[in-house]
Amino acid sequence: MKVAILGMGSVGKGVLRMLGEKDLGIDVTAVADSKSALIDKNGISIADILRVKQKSGFCGDRSLGALDVVKKADYDVLVEVTPTNAITGEPALTHILEAIDRGHDIVTSNKGPISREFSLLMSKAREKGVQIRYEATVGGAIPIMHTLDQGLAGNRILAIFGVLNGTCNFILTRMADEGLTYEQALLEAREMGYAEADPTYDVKGIDPAIKLVILANKFWKETVRLEDVDITGINKLTNNALRLAEEQHCTIRLIAEAIPGRGILRVAPRLLPITHPLVVEGTLNAITIETDMAGEITLIGKGAGSVETASAILGDLLCIRDIHEGSHPETA
Amino acid sequence: MKVAILGMGSVGKGVLRMLGEKDLGIDVTAVADSKSALIDKNGISIADILRVKQKSGFCGDRSLGALDVVKKADYDVLVEVTPTNAITGEPALTHILEAIDRGHDIVTSNKGPISREFSLLMSKAREKGVQIRYEATVGGAIPIMHTLDQGLAGNRILAIFGVLNGTCNFILTRMADEGLTYEQALLEAREMGYAEADPTYDVKGIDPAIKLVILANKFWKETVRLEDVDITGINKLTNNALRLAEEQHCTIRLIAEAIPGRGILRVAPRLLPITHPLVVEGTLNAITIETDMAGEITLIGKGAGSVETASAILGDLLCIRDIHEGSHPETA
Repeated sequence: MKVAILGMGSVGKGVLRMLGEKDLGIDVTAVADSKSALIDKNGISIADILRVKQKSGFCGDRSLGALDVVKKADYDVLVEVTPTNAITGEPALTHILEAIDRGHDIVTSNKGPISREFSLLMSKAREKGVQIRYEATVGGAIPIMHTLDQGLAGNRILAIFGVLNGTCNFILTRMADEGLTYEQALLEAREMGYAEADPTYDVKGIDPAIKLVILANKFWKETVRLEDVDITGINKLTNNALRLAEEQHCTIRLIAEAIPGRGILRVAPRLLPITHPLVVEGTLNAITIETDMAGEITLIGKGAGSVETASAILGDLLCIRDIHEGSHPETA
Repeated sequence: MKVAILGMGSVGKGVLRMLGEKDLGIDVTAVADSKSALIDKNGISIADILRVKQKSGFCGDRSLGALDVVKKADYDVLVEVTPTNAITGEPALTHILEAIDRGHDIVTSNKGPISREFSLLMSKAREKGVQIRYEATVGGAIPIMHTLDQGLAGNRILAIFGVLNGTCNFILTRMADEGLTYEQALLEAREMGYAEADPTYDVKGIDPAIKLVILANKFWKETVRLEDVDITGINKLTNNALRLAEEQHCTIRLIAEAIPGRGILRVAPRLLPITHPLVVEGTLNAITIETDMAGEITLIGKGAGSVETASAILGDLLCIRDIHEGSHPETA
C-alpha cells in the first residue's frame, strides 16, 4: 500500500518514524511540509527524508506544495496531518476533498475538516467508495473509534463523557495536588511544553468541544457544530474551588459530555469523586461510553504525543490495508 | 446468519434476549441446555423458548442434547456458553472441536477450552478456515480482544496488567472502605450474589489466572497453561494490610500481570496508589495494556453479568457476520 503524507510536524514525523521502524508493507511515495514537497512513485527513503528535514527545515522541492502531492503523486491513502484550523478547516479540507475526488482513502488527525464538514466529507466518501478514518482526532492514542465501531458493535451508545484535553487536565491536577493557582499551573504547563503560547483553545474548552462534535457526529449521525456546544473553560477556576472539592473527597475535571436523549452537548468543569474512572492524572485523557448492553466502558490513555498519535494513524492505515487486501484480523 | 446456542444459563439467556430485542439479521436455529435441546432449521421463536425454559426448566426435547445440536442442526456459528470446567474444558471442548470439524465458526464465553487447549483450537480453526472468537472469556463487557486486534493494530504489546475478577475486587473494596475483615466481606459478596457458595476459584486467584493464560496465549502466541502462573489469592489478606496501605494513600488490588520480556506471569495482591487507573471499585474489571507506540491504555468496565457478557458475544457474532458478508465496519 502506498501513502502520501501531508504535514511534517510532530505527528507527521512520528508516523514516518514508525513506518520506518515497523515492517507493515506500507510505502511512502510523497511527503509535504508547509513549504516544500517530495514525490517519488518508487518510494521515499524515510531515514533520508527525516534527516533532510532535520537539517534543512524542508522536506523537498520548494516549487512543490501539498496540493501537488494530492494531485500528482502515486498513492492509495492520503495521510493528512497538517495543523488544525478549527474555523475554516483549511487547507486540510481542500486536500481531503481533492483526494477523495480522485478516489483515494483518507487517514487524518486533523480536527478542523472532520469537525466542521463531517457530513459533507462522509457523503463524498460514500459517493466515491473510499474510507475516511480519523481515530487520531480524538483521545490521542486511545482507540475510541475502533472500540465503538467494532468492540461494542451491537450496542446502542447512550452517552459519552470525556476528559479530552490533556493541557486542562494537567493544570487541574497541579492545582489540586500542589495548591497552585490557575495562573501558576498554566505557567508550569507552558514550561513543560504542554500548553501553547496562546492557550485559549485549551483552557476555554474549545479544543475538547471540537472533539465532542466529532464524537457526536460519528455516533449519532447528527450534524452538530462547535456553535451547538455549551462551553465553560477552566480559566476562571479558583484553587479555593478545588480545596472545597477535596474536602468532599472529590476533585474537578473538565468534562465533555454528549447525552443525545437529554439534548446535552456540553463542556464544563465538573465535581467528581476522586475514585471516579474519569479522574485521571496529568496529561492523560479518558472517555466513558454509556451503552445499552455493555453498561459503562471507560478508556484511559495518552491524549497527545508524536508516537502516540502515530499509533492511532497506523491503526487506521492497517484497517484500510486489511480492507484493500480483503483480509481480516486474526483471531489468534 | 444462523446460530446454535449451547447453554441456557445467565449468559445464554442474555444472548437470546438481546438477539430477540435487536434486529441484527441473526436467526437462532437450535438451543440446548444441560438436559434438553430444540432444533428447528426455520428458526426458533426467542420469546417462546425463554418462556418455556422459565416455566419447565427445559428448553426442548429431553431425548436430544448439546452434541445433537452440534451434529444435526443447521447453523453457521456455534455459540458455546455452557458452564466452564477449568480442569478438563469439557463438555465445551468436545462441542467446539466437533463444530470446527464440520466447518462452523465459534463464539464462546467458555474459559475452559480456550485456556486449556488454545493452540490446538487455533490450529484446527486455521486448518478448517473458520473463526474462533472468545471476547467474552476475559473482562466481561470490556472489548479487550477487539481493542488489541484492531484498535491497537501495529503496536507491539509489551505487558498486560489487569483486575480480572469482580468478586475479589468487591471484597477488597469493602475491606478498604468499611474496614471489614476478609470473612465479613466474603459473606457480604455471597449475600449480594457476587460470590459462589464455594468461592475458591475466585478468592484463591485461579479465575483471574485462567483469564491471564488466555490473554498471554493470544498476544504472545505462547503455549502457557494455568500451571505456569504464579498465583497468590486474597484469602489471607488482613484488614490491617489495607489500613497500612491507606496510610500511604494506596490500596490493595488483586492484579494479574503478564510481562513476557521479564518472564513474569503472575496473579497477586498488589499495593497501588488510590489514583491508579487499575484501582476500580466494586465488581468492576480493569485492564492496562502497555504498548510500544500507544503507551499505556486502560479499559474499565463490568466484568460479569448476563447482558454485559451478551454484549461481548454479540460483538463477536457481528464481526463474523461482517466477514461472511465481506463487508466492513463503516467509518461514519
